[in-house]
Amino acid sequence: MATTVTVKVYFEAAHRLHNPAQSDDWNRGIFGKCNNPHGHGHNYVIEAVVRGEPDPESGYLIDMKDLKAVLNRTIVDHVDHRHLNIEVPWLEDIIPTAENLACVFFERATPELPDGVELIALTVHETERNSATYTAD
Amino acid sequence: MATTVTVKVYFEAAHRLHNPAQSDDWNRGIFGKCNNPHGHGHNYVIEAVVRGEPDPESGYLIDMKDLKAVLNRTIVDHVDHRHLNIEVPWLEDIIPTAENLACVFFERATPELPDGVELIALTVHETERNSATYTAD
Amino acid sequence: MATTVTVKVYFEAAHRLHNPAQSDDWNRGIFGKCNNPHGHGHNYVIEAVVRGEPDPESGYLIDMKDLKAVLNRTIVDHVDHRHLNIEVPWLEDIIPTAENLACVFFERATPELPDGVELIALTVHETERNSATYTAD
Amino acid sequence: MATTVTVKVYFEAAHRLHNPAQSDDWNRGIFGKCNNPHGHGHNYVIEAVVRGEPDPESGYLIDMKDLKAVLNRTIVDHVDHRHLNIEVPWLEDIIPTAENLACVFFERATPELPDGVELIALTVHETERNSATYTAD
Amino acid sequence: MATTVTVKVYFEAAHRLHNPAQSDDWNRGIFGKCNNPHGHGHNYVIEAVVRGEPDPESGYLIDMKDLKAVLNRTIVDHVDHRHLNIEVPWLEDIIPTAENLACVFFERATPELPDGVELIALTVHETERNSATYTAD
Amino acid sequence: MATTVTVKVYFEAAHRLHNPAQSDDWNRGIFGKCNNPHGHGHNYVIEAVVRGEPDPESGYLIDMKDLKAVLNRTIVDHVDHRHLNIEVPWLEDIIPTAENLACVFFERATPELPDGVELIALTVHETERNSATYTAD
Repeated sequence: MATTVTVKVYFEAAHRLHNPAQSDDWNRGIFGKCNNPHGHGHNYVIEAVVRGEPDPESGYLIDMKDLKAVLNRTIVDHVDHRHLNIEVPWLEDIIPTAENLACVFFERATPELPDGVELIALTVHETERNSATYTAD
Repeated sequence: MATTVTVKVYFEAAHRLHNPAQSDDWNRGIFGKCNNPHGHGHNYVIEAVVRGEPDPESGYLIDMKDLKAVLNRTIVDHVDHRHLNIEVPWLEDIIPTAENLACVFFERATPELPDGVELIALTVHETERNSATYTAD
Repeated sequence: MATTVTVKVYFEAAHRLHNPAQSDDWNRGIFGKCNNPHGHGHNYVIEAVVRGEPDPESGYLIDMKDLKAVLNRTIVDHVDHRHLNIEVPWLEDIIPTAENLACVFFERATPELPDGVELIALTVHETERNSATYTAD
Repeated sequence: MATTVTVKVYFEAAHRLHNPAQSDDWNRGIFGKCNNPHGHGHNYVIEAVVRGEPDPESGYLIDMKDLKAVLNRTIVDHVDHRHLNIEVPWLEDIIPTAENLACVFFERATPELPDGVELIALTVHETERNSATYTAD
Repeated sequence: MATTVTVKVYFEAAHRLHNPAQSDDWNRGIFGKCNNPHGHGHNYVIEAVVRGEPDPESGYLIDMKDLKAVLNRTIVDHVDHRHLNIEVPWLEDIIPTAENLACVFFERATPELPDGVELIALTVHETERNSATYTAD
Repeated sequence: MATTVTVKVYFEAAHRLHNPAQSDDWNRGIFGKCNNPHGHGHNYVIEAVVRGEPDPESGYLIDMKDLKAVLNRTIVDHVDHRHLNIEVPWLEDIIPTAENLACVFFERATPELPDGVELIALTVHETERNSATYTAD
């Protein structure tokens, strides 16, 4: 048996799918309109799942406000209202697909969680119909 | 390969996060405004996932109406339009965090399911952004 | 032709439908389980619509952050995580139905809006299926 | 660690829950109003989850547009605006419960996915509150 | 100033867009795949708005449960899990577009409302993106 | 009495709130983080409401597919996956606030509607909580 807690946080950003190591033609072929030079944008949702034992004194696995604070401090504060390809140093060498964002966000949040609280999945929702998840299993 | 069925049921309740074995200061420090003495409330959503083999004659793992009836009879009928700290005998010694509710609700529904239908996860959504899940794995 | 701006803000509260000037029987007959003595709760959504002329320099009718700040300062900060029948002085003589809340919230927010920005409708959503609106027309 | 991508596609269809090998009484007893002779309908949502390694050149596990195209070509184009019991040859011997649809849809989409992209779960949502999932584990 | 109350109720039905007074070619040309002979279906949402004065004793314009009961008794009980072209006598001469359903549903519910409660709008949502409204102004 | 039809269409775009006729300080003061130089983005939803008489032969005020096609051809095809400040000629002198977009989109779609179908409101949703509407009354 196991307990998990799930929270969602939000940000709004521009991005462009582009691999600068490849030609313009390659990029246009792979990414289509997502490669438009000035970027487009999303209302991103980050959904994080943590696992652990609820504390018997408080009934909390983790205070959900604290979990959101970790996600905001390590991720949202850096990317909200930004262009992901240009203004975020730790995304500089990353093509900002949902898959890559999920992995990088997962790695940024993990070390900031308290002992006994393990991040087991982080999902980046680009739209209500499109998302990618990075998981610990 | 496996088949699961997921349903959602709803209730509206008040609760207060408070551990009577601890001091008022401790409670205020841990729970903040969730410790306000007269409680606050939520439109709760219970999401239950069951696993099993669909019956070849009906194509049903379980009739979803029957699954909802189990959840309503064992949980919703007792907590809907109630104050969870005061009016529900089987929650009396429980701090009604989402984590604890998920566990207690899971244990109440499990023995009422028909043979071959296993409850594998029960999630309590407090809001669209906050939830806790109790799982069988 | 006219321009309107709509924003939503949120709070979580307990309430009880009860008219203290009437008998317990009357209250139970009118309000049913909404009259349960210890109250129940909701994730409330306030949706406010304002009308006016966008400023040609900014393109804003009103900065939506500012509109939300008015709603938060005049309403949400007083009712979030509260029991509406007990802990909010300006709701003391009000039966906290959605209809009454919409009217009182409308009247609290209106005088705090800047010149040229008129509140024309305020909706209180108790659930995704139930709401009441107070309108200026 | 693993990466998954999730997409949703939509269709609108009529269906009737009925097992022609059984009596009318049996069918009425098992399926209730879902057995009404002329059928009823849903706005169905198909949610598919695939697992694999993102390509380091593109950052894509799979282009989500391509994944949706597979689901549309193998499933949606055949069932959208159809009566599932009558007009879809490959559903002819299937009682169109959500459980059975999830299994059949899973089997139709799987062989059309590119190498390295594994379908691990397919969910059929009949409503926001009722769904069934067929999974690879 | 005015107060309105809005509620939503749900049903699941099959329908076919077809005018029997016209040729098959005409029908196919006008309605496209919505004319498929065996129909398709929707999870319909009915959203009703009523206007009136809240009762000072109860704070209710109308008990929302009662308003839903009117909609269920006059509409939902007749159309839920039905084929709208075949099984509903009062829809027999109506092409079941959202526009026509909104008008007929409006006319069925109106006379059943209590004095002082006026139905001012009824919306039929076929999907989250498509709806029609019949209004009293 | 009147009938209206409402549809929603979607696009994803980057934008920056900036008035080039004003100083950088003015812009930063008015628009805050929405003025970040490289822009941010949204999953925009356009919601359009038209009024008219349903055709007695078809039951349609307008085929909702045709209404969406007008919105897509006159608006979405030009702005989807674009940076609204840079890549859309007819937005060149417009600060792309929701208020201004609603007005410009309204004016682009109106002349393309068939006789008897009047656009009465167009809403631009930037997020689920923020929107602006341009209306004909």
